[in-house]
Amino acid sequence: MADNSIPTDGRNQAGDSELQRKVFAVVFQSRTPAGKYFDILLIIAIVASVVALMLASIESIWARYAQPLYLAEWAFTILFTIEYVVRLWCVREPRVYAGSFYGVVDLLAVLPTYLALFVTGSAYLMVIRILRILRLFRVLKLARYVSAADALVEAMVQSWRKILVFLYVILTIVVIFGSAMYLIEGPENGFTSIPRGVYWGIVTLTTVGFGDITPQTPLGQAVAAVVMVLGYGIIAVPTGIYAAELRDVMTRRRQAQICPECGRTGHDEDAKFCKFCGARFAPAEKGSG
Amino acid sequence: MADNSIPTDGRNQAGDSELQRKVFAVVFQSRTPAGKYFDILLIIAIVASVVALMLASIESIWARYAQPLYLAEWAFTILFTIEYVVRLWCVREPRVYAGSFYGVVDLLAVLPTYLALFVTGSAYLMVIRILRILRLFRVLKLARYVSAADALVEAMVQSWRKILVFLYVILTIVVIFGSAMYLIEGPENGFTSIPRGVYWGIVTLTTVGFGDITPQTPLGQAVAAVVMVLGYGIIAVPTGIYAAELRDVMTRRRQAQICPECGRTGHDEDAKFCKFCGARFAPAEKGSG
Amino acid sequence: MADNSIPTDGRNQAGDSELQRKVFAVVFQSRTPAGKYFDILLIIAIVASVVALMLASIESIWARYAQPLYLAEWAFTILFTIEYVVRLWCVREPRVYAGSFYGVVDLLAVLPTYLALFVTGSAYLMVIRILRILRLFRVLKLARYVSAADALVEAMVQSWRKILVFLYVILTIVVIFGSAMYLIEGPENGFTSIPRGVYWGIVTLTTVGFGDITPQTPLGQAVAAVVMVLGYGIIAVPTGIYAAELRDVMTRRRQAQICPECGRTGHDEDAKFCKFCGARFAPAEKGSG
Amino acid sequence: MADNSIPTDGRNQAGDSELQRKVFAVVFQSRTPAGKYFDILLIIAIVASVVALMLASIESIWARYAQPLYLAEWAFTILFTIEYVVRLWCVREPRVYAGSFYGVVDLLAVLPTYLALFVTGSAYLMVIRILRILRLFRVLKLARYVSAADALVEAMVQSWRKILVFLYVILTIVVIFGSAMYLIEGPENGFTSIPRGVYWGIVTLTTVGFGDITPQTPLGQAVAAVVMVLGYGIIAVPTGIYAAELRDVMTRRRQAQICPECGRTGHDEDAKFCKFCGARFAPAEKGSG
Repeated sequence: MADNSIPTDGRNQAGDSELQRKVFAVVFQSRTPAGKYFDILLIIAIVASVVALMLASIESIWARYAQPLYLAEWAFTILFTIEYVVRLWCVREPRVYAGSFYGVVDLLAVLPTYLALFVTGSAYLMVIRILRILRLFRVLKLARYVSAADALVEAMVQSWRKILVFLYVILTIVVIFGSAMYLIEGPENGFTSIPRGVYWGIVTLTTVGFGDITPQTPLGQAVAAVVMVLGYGIIAVPTGIYAAELRDVMTRRRQAQICPECGRTGHDEDAKFCKFCGARFAPAEKGSG
Repeated sequence: MADNSIPTDGRNQAGDSELQRKVFAVVFQSRTPAGKYFDILLIIAIVASVVALMLASIESIWARYAQPLYLAEWAFTILFTIEYVVRLWCVREPRVYAGSFYGVVDLLAVLPTYLALFVTGSAYLMVIRILRILRLFRVLKLARYVSAADALVEAMVQSWRKILVFLYVILTIVVIFGSAMYLIEGPENGFTSIPRGVYWGIVTLTTVGFGDITPQTPLGQAVAAVVMVLGYGIIAVPTGIYAAELRDVMTRRRQAQICPECGRTGHDEDAKFCKFCGARFAPAEKGSG
Repeated sequence: MADNSIPTDGRNQAGDSELQRKVFAVVFQSRTPAGKYFDILLIIAIVASVVALMLASIESIWARYAQPLYLAEWAFTILFTIEYVVRLWCVREPRVYAGSFYGVVDLLAVLPTYLALFVTGSAYLMVIRILRILRLFRVLKLARYVSAADALVEAMVQSWRKILVFLYVILTIVVIFGSAMYLIEGPENGFTSIPRGVYWGIVTLTTVGFGDITPQTPLGQAVAAVVMVLGYGIIAVPTGIYAAELRDVMTRRRQAQICPECGRTGHDEDAKFCKFCGARFAPAEKGSG
Repeated sequence: MADNSIPTDGRNQAGDSELQRKVFAVVFQSRTPAGKYFDILLIIAIVASVVALMLASIESIWARYAQPLYLAEWAFTILFTIEYVVRLWCVREPRVYAGSFYGVVDLLAVLPTYLALFVTGSAYLMVIRILRILRLFRVLKLARYVSAADALVEAMVQSWRKILVFLYVILTIVVIFGSAMYLIEGPENGFTSIPRGVYWGIVTLTTVGFGDITPQTPLGQAVAAVVMVLGYGIIAVPTGIYAAELRDVMTRRRQAQICPECGRTGHDEDAKFCKFCGARFAPAEKGSG
């Protein structure tokens, strides 16, 4: 469906030579068996390299296995570098690929390791390398999960304006209540400043409730109760928005009745006439499910 | 749609002179380019002044930057004072504006700073000044977010009676369980009084779970488990109410088109023909934000 | 709608004498002005007595205001006793009233205060007196909130079987994961027994997260992550169940199209024929909203 | 509906002899009174044995009641062993039963107790015995809860692909934010490694919020606020997915009736006539649990 015949998100078509086209089919597409094996290997390599990075950040593991983890990191880096070069080589317009989202992610997956040879402060570079996990999205995009993800994203796109309004209301609530709590509880109870009060407000309204800052005075606890009930109650709003939009998207997709006259879709399941040109539908073409 | 031609929430029309009308279009409306620039500048000023207030409440920042923050606060106050005076001057009935919700918010945005010259106890005044954030609502109201917010509010208005019933049930649960926990756990485990037990009940039922008060006895933990599962289960109720009402509102907005021939509704917003009898709709009758 | 002409939940009709009928209209019904004033006074008295009970449980307040609170409690008790006796007197069958839910609640609202004269261990009696809050339900039942609450309850009744299945699944998850955590973390990390592990499982799965018991080992944290994501994901299930049922109930109530032939309701909005007797509906009688 | 006439999930039909068939009807089915009594006894035995196991894990209870609990465990084991042997004997193909899900669960319910005679490390065996709770599912499956559970499971099966996409997005968010927090907060504030950061991310995104690791720096708290609002907002996604699918399943079940005249669906379960053309439905074709 969303296969690479169309150059979605900056990915472009294969180069002109026969070899370029063959390699392109393997590294960018997943229709051929070779393309599928490549995808699976890539998924394994990405997951393994992310796990290795995570393990390397644990001090006790690093103390014992520094060398194998260091070697593994270099092995993955060289592997991903070769892959990056091959990708650059086999596409028709390397610049378009290099400038695309996945082109940048692919580069960020290898660059930090080379930089670490010259620069200190490797902790920052380590975290950038973690972004490799984003590369999985491309591989998964080729799979059958596309249409499922598409519906989710479409519903999100349709509801983003409503959700933005909701977020602004949340922000206002949190700023006002956070300031009030700063006044009521004061620095002696952990509310040392308004931003800290706002942080507490977010922790409380989202029902996370770390408990690192908690109200101690009766009035503060009463205000906190209001914030909690508010957060518990309005969690319904984004859910309601999203559920309503998602159902809409799903319904519309299922109602892909095509008019025999004008070829347009978007008709309801119970429609007898095309709502665009007035043509009568054949009554037998129906079928729900 | 919700533009200021209609004096919504107490705002009224421009004064009689040409200058008043021109200024009114800038400060109250956003149809003209000047009006749009004014809105953007106002948003920046409001956000900047709220951020400055927040920073001023952090002790370490205040210790170092007391003077610039003090000056910034006065600059914003003078700016907002001028804006308030201009607003008062350009409307036809200044009293109606001054008494409206936004008129009061506008006044509260500047008054505390002047009061702080005469009165001590500036912490209270600081928090009142934070209410400036509410002024953003007016600016945002002029934008395209109105209709999105409208649907959300309409669904909320329609479901408020159900939500009130729900809140009363919540309150009853929390009072009864909070009292029971006071009895079971007692002051030695942090449940020093019934109101504190009720506070714990709200913290638990809303799934916030600060952990500042936690049951220690087996029986208390069993009762707590009931409260938690209850809270986890009935979070469905406001969500269900709101989702159902919101979908209703959205459906009704889409179904506002009535067929002139067969009188039936249920057509999409983009329908040109009745889907039941094939009659053509008048194309001009549309219009939705 | 749910007025007292029908003796719902054990409440019965007024006695035979004129006075009994008049008093009945005041204390049991809210159609007359006197009945409405009585309801409002009763709400105030109930709320005030519950607040007084709560305040009395706070040690510092009791130390200072023991006497007025003690007197208030007796005043409320005598008031509610008179009310109880009047209710018993004015109904036709006092036994039915005394045995009904509200009859028992009314008695429990006054009995503990008298018992406290003879028995010690007043903490238990205090909590029983808190049940007075349940009396509010009767008063609110007479108000316009009935139909709103009715829809909520009807949806809950329709979904209770599904929710029971869900609760059993939750219980199974919690028992298995709680036992596993007892094994993995052990008593040294707070998981001193399987019931305590199950308690932790409930705290975690319901996303309450007190933090009184937290996993310390990497494996325990990994298992905890599974429980958390599970709890975060399946919160959708009761919400989905309830939302779907509630929408059903609301739709059915709105679709109260009545067949002119057989007089039955429950037809869809787009129905042209009665689904029970096959009679054709008049096409103009429609109207959504 | 889901009765044992069809060998669902590996269960097979009764053996040939009359006795086998009679015993089969009791232990595997619940249509006969004897079968129902057996089910109820089994539920009691399973629940009692799980409760006994839980109690045995509490040190203070074990210290006092080791002997009765030990005896009870053996009593339950012998009971379940007899039941297991009877089940093996009365089915036509014992191997199919032994290899089925419930066959394995039945074996795991008794094996650990015998193993504990020879092997040490009984804690592991104890937790395996807890899996007995899964046996309740079989008994409940025979009850009227089947169709309710069926709809829930069907909706879950239909939405699992969407939920998988959602889980992968969650994982990516959590890995990236967890790594960022490791960088920002560092080991001195509890974020000792990336996996620990990811664990914190899951605790926060799912709104559990234990509070065992909390951000201390202002930047860390700002990032935490983003994670919390994200988690609070996207809890809508699985709920929306599930609610939409569940409503679909429920609608489809209601719409399974097809009009013999006009071929259209969308009739309620209680419809006797087609609501579109008025044709009478055959009354016998119904049937739903």
